[in-house]
Amino acid sequence: MKFEISAKIAYQALAPSTLILNIQPFQSEGQHIIEEKFTSGPDLKMKECYAVGGEKRFSIIEIPEPGNITLNYKAIVETRIQIVPSRQLEDVPIAEMTVEALSYLNPSRYCQSDKLYKFAYNKFGNIEHAFEKVMAIRDWINKNVEYSGGYTTPQTSAYDTITQQIGVCRDFAHLGIALCRALTIPARYFTGYAYQLNPQDFHACFEAYLGGYWVIIDATKLVPINGLVKIATGLDATDNAFASIFGNLQFQQMEISTTLLENEFQYADSNTTLQGYSYV
Amino acid sequence: MKFEISAKIAYQALAPSTLILNIQPFQSEGQHIIEEKFTSGPDLKMKECYAVGGEKRFSIIEIPEPGNITLNYKAIVETRIQIVPSRQLEDVPIAEMTVEALSYLNPSRYCQSDKLYKFAYNKFGNIEHAFEKVMAIRDWINKNVEYSGGYTTPQTSAYDTITQQIGVCRDFAHLGIALCRALTIPARYFTGYAYQLNPQDFHACFEAYLGGYWVIIDATKLVPINGLVKIATGLDATDNAFASIFGNLQFQQMEISTTLLENEFQYADSNTTLQGYSYV
Amino acid sequence: MKFEISAKIAYQALAPSTLILNIQPFQSEGQHIIEEKFTSGPDLKMKECYAVGGEKRFSIIEIPEPGNITLNYKAIVETRIQIVPSRQLEDVPIAEMTVEALSYLNPSRYCQSDKLYKFAYNKFGNIEHAFEKVMAIRDWINKNVEYSGGYTTPQTSAYDTITQQIGVCRDFAHLGIALCRALTIPARYFTGYAYQLNPQDFHACFEAYLGGYWVIIDATKLVPINGLVKIATGLDATDNAFASIFGNLQFQQMEISTTLLENEFQYADSNTTLQGYSYV
Amino acid sequence: MKFEISAKIAYQALAPSTLILNIQPFQSEGQHIIEEKFTSGPDLKMKECYAVGGEKRFSIIEIPEPGNITLNYKAIVETRIQIVPSRQLEDVPIAEMTVEALSYLNPSRYCQSDKLYKFAYNKFGNIEHAFEKVMAIRDWINKNVEYSGGYTTPQTSAYDTITQQIGVCRDFAHLGIALCRALTIPARYFTGYAYQLNPQDFHACFEAYLGGYWVIIDATKLVPINGLVKIATGLDATDNAFASIFGNLQFQQMEISTTLLENEFQYADSNTTLQGYSYV
Repeated sequence: MKFEISAKIAYQALAPSTLILNIQPFQSEGQHIIEEKFTSGPDLKMKECYAVGGEKRFSIIEIPEPGNITLNYKAIVETRIQIVPSRQLEDVPIAEMTVEALSYLNPSRYCQSDKLYKFAYNKFGNIEHAFEKVMAIRDWINKNVEYSGGYTTPQTSAYDTITQQIGVCRDFAHLGIALCRALTIPARYFTGYAYQLNPQDFHACFEAYLGGYWVIIDATKLVPINGLVKIATGLDATDNAFASIFGNLQFQQMEISTTLLENEFQYADSNTTLQGYSYV
Repeated sequence: MKFEISAKIAYQALAPSTLILNIQPFQSEGQHIIEEKFTSGPDLKMKECYAVGGEKRFSIIEIPEPGNITLNYKAIVETRIQIVPSRQLEDVPIAEMTVEALSYLNPSRYCQSDKLYKFAYNKFGNIEHAFEKVMAIRDWINKNVEYSGGYTTPQTSAYDTITQQIGVCRDFAHLGIALCRALTIPARYFTGYAYQLNPQDFHACFEAYLGGYWVIIDATKLVPINGLVKIATGLDATDNAFASIFGNLQFQQMEISTTLLENEFQYADSNTTLQGYSYV
Repeated sequence: MKFEISAKIAYQALAPSTLILNIQPFQSEGQHIIEEKFTSGPDLKMKECYAVGGEKRFSIIEIPEPGNITLNYKAIVETRIQIVPSRQLEDVPIAEMTVEALSYLNPSRYCQSDKLYKFAYNKFGNIEHAFEKVMAIRDWINKNVEYSGGYTTPQTSAYDTITQQIGVCRDFAHLGIALCRALTIPARYFTGYAYQLNPQDFHACFEAYLGGYWVIIDATKLVPINGLVKIATGLDATDNAFASIFGNLQFQQMEISTTLLENEFQYADSNTTLQGYSYV
Repeated sequence: MKFEISAKIAYQALAPSTLILNIQPFQSEGQHIIEEKFTSGPDLKMKECYAVGGEKRFSIIEIPEPGNITLNYKAIVETRIQIVPSRQLEDVPIAEMTVEALSYLNPSRYCQSDKLYKFAYNKFGNIEHAFEKVMAIRDWINKNVEYSGGYTTPQTSAYDTITQQIGVCRDFAHLGIALCRALTIPARYFTGYAYQLNPQDFHACFEAYLGGYWVIIDATKLVPINGLVKIATGLDATDNAFASIFGNLQFQQMEISTTLLENEFQYADSNTTLQGYSYV
């Protein structure tokens, strides 16, 4: 699928500051950046970086003096998301996991899987097939957690959401990740642009490691999986913040868009339990 | 039912200390203390107190110097626990609750009902009848929380137990109370002696306010409800600690016993949902 | 001191509801309600209640149908707050405390003193005199916690405030209470009207039990202690909520006023460590 | 410095299991593994792995059937720890940090720096020089937190330790890391063998990123910094667990030793604030 994506973000700098933006899609075999343009007004010093051993590209932007700044990112991206039949999405024995997958078994700041072992086991432990477990987690979250803004804060974690049962995409993702890890299924946080997300905004969901694939799961069921453009994957929202501010910047405004550059869109069924979706 | 109960508790005092013991059964219309004897070795100054507006009797014991101390309590108690048919155990409208019942709607240290509204509502909100809600809470806890010592600490609260799903009688009671309060059903912590509890120890469960009755509920289902001898009811384990130590006392040993003084014992079915049990 | 106080509160009822308001000053030897008037529009059924064994008077208001409702409370109150020299405000041995004071040693929902023993002891344990300890607690909170709205929620507790160090009067009070209790000094939550609080609102502070007196402490230092009119004291904000809503009421608006009915006002120095202030 | 280190660990396998051990020292420019031997009884399949982008080497050990197993690791290691004068250990501007250092600014499971900003700023914010800030953090922890086993659990985090003020090396390290990160100083968890640690055990401390150096800090002050042999660095104890068990292994016994293979040992002063210690 080919998409044009854009992000326009404005801040007022009240002091010299440094801003780290993690809004550029990740380039991989399954996702090709055909063209991109990242500009700022005024013209600021920007350094592009790649995380060591993770899927993350980010830019460090230096703002030398107070004033209004605007950041404009625009890109054309082609994604290749494949369908994997559920029978291939089995548990991977620990000894056969990649080193990277192993690191996504650990609890993290917002995904305290170490506190959810019994809950996860009581609720999902009797489901035999790994992909079905993850589908049951997705469906349980979707059914029990209310999607609603304004109730959670940046400090809300999976441990809160499991009982408070309200939140936004970030909270849905954290809970999904924590429950997977509690069942010894590696899982990582996914940030991206999302076609048909309404209103347009950055989106968060997660990937679970099944049968050697990183299967994309969205417990909010708000968007078609194959309409996602991956920005980054990582431990959780700490690792993949869209913006990290050092200094004194006041957020002013943000506009996100995700436009399909093809004539037709084959919807990935966000409710299916027959197959998974994964980057090629 | 008539029971002989006894508690023998030994401490080593390392400094002059004060000890508050809350181990004497509460005297009420439904529970008569036929005789009791509370002694200490050496002979210590003991002051008996009644909580203002609660169901609690406790003794303040002054230990003027270091040394070994032993406390012996023994009593014969007659309890009158009645059966109330479930149809009478309905929701009480707020405006008709007693002032005391209202105070048991509040969250407390170990029963953070304010954090469990949606969980309680999602899980039990569609059950119409109040007593059935409470029975469903009892059965859900019993099914999902593993009864096992050594996993929880004095700081473990309902908010922990709801996800960690392991604990002892105290944890079962706190979770039951928190879920009831989250559904606007007053609930209070109950401590007591328990006939046929094996091994013998103090026990904790809770009372829910339904149809004007304080119905005794034990989510552990370890003992017959009509084998309980009430020591106290209160907000939670903070309010009803068996022993509160001020100074420096090392716990040495404790022996509890609960003996039936009648020939026959009609077991109250701890699994029934047809009727509730309440003090006369 | 003589004050005229008033509170005007408006809600929109979206369904039949019950409202408990705890906004009427408590009547005691030290505080005389000269006259009061509590009306509602439309005319609603109101029942006045007194807490059992606590200092709290509240009204249960039944709202039988949807619509706008307004509550108007107005009173003239005379308070008698005495000065107690610091040398009289000593530690009370456990065995000499009143039963009521003992109950304010327990941790509560928002004042988890059981988690702050070492912090309290490390920071204030070497101060010998009890009143000086409490003054040091007041001053430490005032210095380290930023008074600022919008950062804390109804679920914020002393355990959060001790590290997050920002909050409003409620948070200042909870932290003061938790630290006192951790040092075996009974402490209770105080709600009231506050002369010269700007902007006018309900206020919260706390009372510590010293030398047999309940000494009023305000770690915010925003108002003169002798300008307070007590509504209630209790365990913490759970016990003393101004409004508890059962049903579906949307808050619309509130206006509070506290007017001095005397010509002169002798300011109680909110910074002094030489004397305490207590109701007669 | 040259050391011989050894670890002998025994488990009883109750079922086929997989064990990940992270007990082999990390090989780097500053630490040379002269020889090592890792054996098991019975002879088990072991796979050595290197973390992607982190300083961690670990072994995945497959235990195909129940029974007793023993793991023996022995190595001779030469460490090169340099002294860096405090004036070189300055704040590194965000834009000049390495990508790796940036990742150690994030909060993690046990180091919730996002909840400690104001605490850290109030307590250490007025210290200008970055190394002095870190020294003040080390000294504050050492003074206020009691080193004592049995009070904390694997779930204890920096947010707990900052108020509970008791714990072991792991807890001291987590708190140090959280406070550094809250002040925008990258910090990472350090596990290792420790010469003169008594009794011998694995040890944990942390590294702070100052002036481009990863300076080793041990808030317990139990051992000389230059007697450490690094096993790994990472986000916190989740990332650097000595043993991770998948399956059913019962821990039996562990013996650790760290022996100096040189005649003389120049003690690094664990109290100094004049200089830092860092791997070459």
